[in-house]
Amino acid sequence: MSGSLSPRHLLSLAELSPATFESLLDAAERLRGPRGREPLLAGRRFGMVFFNASLRTRTAFEVASFDLGAHAVYLQVGGGLWSLEHRSGVVMDGAHAEHVKEGFGVLSRMLDAVGVRAFASLTDADEDARDAVIRSIAAASTVPVLNLESAMDHPHQGLADALTVRRELGGERVKVVVHWAPHVKPLPLAVPHAALLGFAHAGHDVVVAHPEGFDLEPGTLASARALAEARGGTVSVTHDRAEALHGARVVYAKAWGTRSLYGQPEAATAAVRAHPEWTVDGKAMAATDEAIFLHCLPVRRGVVVADEVLDGPQSRVLDQAENRLHVQKATLCHAMGVEP
Amino acid sequence: MSGSLSPRHLLSLAELSPATFESLLDAAERLRGPRGREPLLAGRRFGMVFFNASLRTRTAFEVASFDLGAHAVYLQVGGGLWSLEHRSGVVMDGAHAEHVKEGFGVLSRMLDAVGVRAFASLTDADEDARDAVIRSIAAASTVPVLNLESAMDHPHQGLADALTVRRELGGERVKVVVHWAPHVKPLPLAVPHAALLGFAHAGHDVVVAHPEGFDLEPGTLASARALAEARGGTVSVTHDRAEALHGARVVYAKAWGTRSLYGQPEAATAAVRAHPEWTVDGKAMAATDEAIFLHCLPVRRGVVVADEVLDGPQSRVLDQAENRLHVQKATLCHAMGVEP
Amino acid sequence: MSGSLSPRHLLSLAELSPATFESLLDAAERLRGPRGREPLLAGRRFGMVFFNASLRTRTAFEVASFDLGAHAVYLQVGGGLWSLEHRSGVVMDGAHAEHVKEGFGVLSRMLDAVGVRAFASLTDADEDARDAVIRSIAAASTVPVLNLESAMDHPHQGLADALTVRRELGGERVKVVVHWAPHVKPLPLAVPHAALLGFAHAGHDVVVAHPEGFDLEPGTLASARALAEARGGTVSVTHDRAEALHGARVVYAKAWGTRSLYGQPEAATAAVRAHPEWTVDGKAMAATDEAIFLHCLPVRRGVVVADEVLDGPQSRVLDQAENRLHVQKATLCHAMGVEP
Repeated sequence: MSGSLSPRHLLSLAELSPATFESLLDAAERLRGPRGREPLLAGRRFGMVFFNASLRTRTAFEVASFDLGAHAVYLQVGGGLWSLEHRSGVVMDGAHAEHVKEGFGVLSRMLDAVGVRAFASLTDADEDARDAVIRSIAAASTVPVLNLESAMDHPHQGLADALTVRRELGGERVKVVVHWAPHVKPLPLAVPHAALLGFAHAGHDVVVAHPEGFDLEPGTLASARALAEARGGTVSVTHDRAEALHGARVVYAKAWGTRSLYGQPEAATAAVRAHPEWTVDGKAMAATDEAIFLHCLPVRRGVVVADEVLDGPQSRVLDQAENRLHVQKATLCHAMGVEP
Repeated sequence: MSGSLSPRHLLSLAELSPATFESLLDAAERLRGPRGREPLLAGRRFGMVFFNASLRTRTAFEVASFDLGAHAVYLQVGGGLWSLEHRSGVVMDGAHAEHVKEGFGVLSRMLDAVGVRAFASLTDADEDARDAVIRSIAAASTVPVLNLESAMDHPHQGLADALTVRRELGGERVKVVVHWAPHVKPLPLAVPHAALLGFAHAGHDVVVAHPEGFDLEPGTLASARALAEARGGTVSVTHDRAEALHGARVVYAKAWGTRSLYGQPEAATAAVRAHPEWTVDGKAMAATDEAIFLHCLPVRRGVVVADEVLDGPQSRVLDQAENRLHVQKATLCHAMGVEP
Repeated sequence: MSGSLSPRHLLSLAELSPATFESLLDAAERLRGPRGREPLLAGRRFGMVFFNASLRTRTAFEVASFDLGAHAVYLQVGGGLWSLEHRSGVVMDGAHAEHVKEGFGVLSRMLDAVGVRAFASLTDADEDARDAVIRSIAAASTVPVLNLESAMDHPHQGLADALTVRRELGGERVKVVVHWAPHVKPLPLAVPHAALLGFAHAGHDVVVAHPEGFDLEPGTLASARALAEARGGTVSVTHDRAEALHGARVVYAKAWGTRSLYGQPEAATAAVRAHPEWTVDGKAMAATDEAIFLHCLPVRRGVVVADEVLDGPQSRVLDQAENRLHVQKATLCHAMGVEP
């Protein structure tokens, strides 16, 4: 309902100023406590449009809204919602019944902010790299758009990741490994990007470790380097897993696919299955400096990570997930212009 | 929970008294303002049962409920809800697990009103013409039933349409064209019926313009004529598009299928694709008396209407959609016996 | 969010103490009145995870939460929610993207209690008999888990059944028939188990009547016998329908399948269709002592029960369904440690 000319979108951590990043983490810390159950957003309406499945993001935003006196409307594309076109200038004679211009134009008249989940297509590399779906939605919306995981970023995850490390390790600059892991199918780059950007924002020494051929987007790496350096941190990339684990205080496991096999699902699947030795097990964790283990969840046990790690004392994955709730309260307040 | 013998159903605009129609529009105007954020319906529960997809209707009712202190339960048939039988006296040995008698009998015990969306089957002309699904549900419900688009009507849309024209053109009696448009598949008659009835209620000179073979239901046309004449308006039908557009102050575009090809999907699809010249473009709008452009949404760009019209200064489709929110607050209050 | 070591799960009526059973019914009676609209659970969050469809359970819990000031989050597995693995120690390289350990571990951080619906597989007799899905979820959850119908039990149904009979017949010990009925496909045992256990808890003389081959689980029968005897009631099983109906004050109809044909869907389907004479019709009801008719719903008219019974004066199925609302308010309060 806002008439603001420039709504406070949160589309990518790369676009977030260091000051805003820090203020969101500080707000999340405050909102962990009783402040997070006050009616700071009384009467506000948040819409959540999911093009893909969700457990944590959906539940955390719905609970965050309720806790703060707001209401979250849950809309699932393909599950009771019209299929949406996002390209401009096309004749809509195919499967899409509605354009995002109308869909989000209308939602902007009924809601105070909108969250959107739209995973990478994994078929159109150019569209994914431009984050075309969420960018077109942001252009069509007159209220703030929050990215609930797009093709290229998952900012709420990156914020929760950084908050988890800050709370565990006290704000100290540490070595953090964003650790590639095997999977049964190729996954998008949004989460490793978000972790990389979140840890870079926090000024850590971030090591991205993966087998050859699994490079992240060069633009995201460059953004992360700039962010880290501004805070006295570093970003590096290695294919040497042992080197990466040595001295690490945080192991952040995540599977992702190779950009070079876009649109070739069989070869892309074979590629992510070709490095089973990258599964994070107790031996890998023992090679670190008593690192904590993080993963964004959902996680495939026995594929990405061994049960012994996930069920062991180094795992912080549930704390990390809980931090999504606190972080999302902070971004809701930010989007709606409320000081938490 | 009401023990009322005659719940305040809202099933069709044809059955609405002129006085009630006007009072709903007046209430919607009031509810646009701060009154629409007061807890007028505190503690009330509204159920929304969708047999089909929805964006606007669902979001508007959920937000309307929240804004007024009520709660809306969203139930999607085929998406977590049992499939429902509505015919009487049948042995239920097929796909339907529950009868509307039980389904809505139970919901009537837990809710204060129920909204139902049940599109036309497009396979059984007689059932559709009788609006059999929503009529059987209304018979089974002891609480008010609101029609969220049935086979034959979409009263909340017609109310929002009339409100939009009233607000744009100040209550003046004007020429309004309900303008048939091409589509990729045959669509039901509910929306053109609702627009026709809404504009007739408002006393406009309504011209229904379509190629030969796309007649609306004779009974609906007769109802609309009676309503319009009581208010000093008129209803006419033409196949001459130029004549229709001349002098028009409102162009209401909508695709619909031909009743004569019921149950023949291929021929019915060919029919709606056979008149591409009926797409509403800038040239058509230029032939009017500076008409505003309306469409209920969702709309297929480049098929029903050209981008230049939808994105241009004559379009009021987002205002029209927003008016759904205000109108639906009014019908919720009406159904629950609350003066807004 | 509770740090309790032993959350107040409600998984099976067999595990409920007689005192707790009675106190839940007493609470449900109080919560029928104005007490049921007070903010007893203000600020609490209840999650509902459905692996299967629902109308009554879902609506009743969502309304119960709202009526008491809480919020219910609705999560549908396979409808916007990741598919979940519940077995321990497996390599998750199949269809399941998330393990219940993580899924419910995370939900426990964001919610105050969780309800779970997970019907019997009807393919793995051992897993179903152990109620493996809901038991593994309860083990993974640090907040109370409510059973919204599992493979083996449907405790909220059994509570509502007992409450309905108590209200209709005034707490008197009566003859109650849990009456097998035909169906179009084999159904699980959860509901007949729940009815049996609920009526046993209430101290009635419960007769389970079914054709040969449709035995309930021996363990459940034994539990029911022990519960009934402690209250001065009895449990018996018969294949003689006339004997069962004679003197009955309650006929509780329900279709269920035969355990001996697990994993043989065609033979199991033929079996439930082989006894059409067990449909409950007016003649059957006339053979009772003016019994009331109950069914958990949804019900297939003309298959399980004749229209004349369901629409006749002996039917109490809508009261029974409404009692779900009151009972579920009681279990929510119990789970969250609130005296209603």
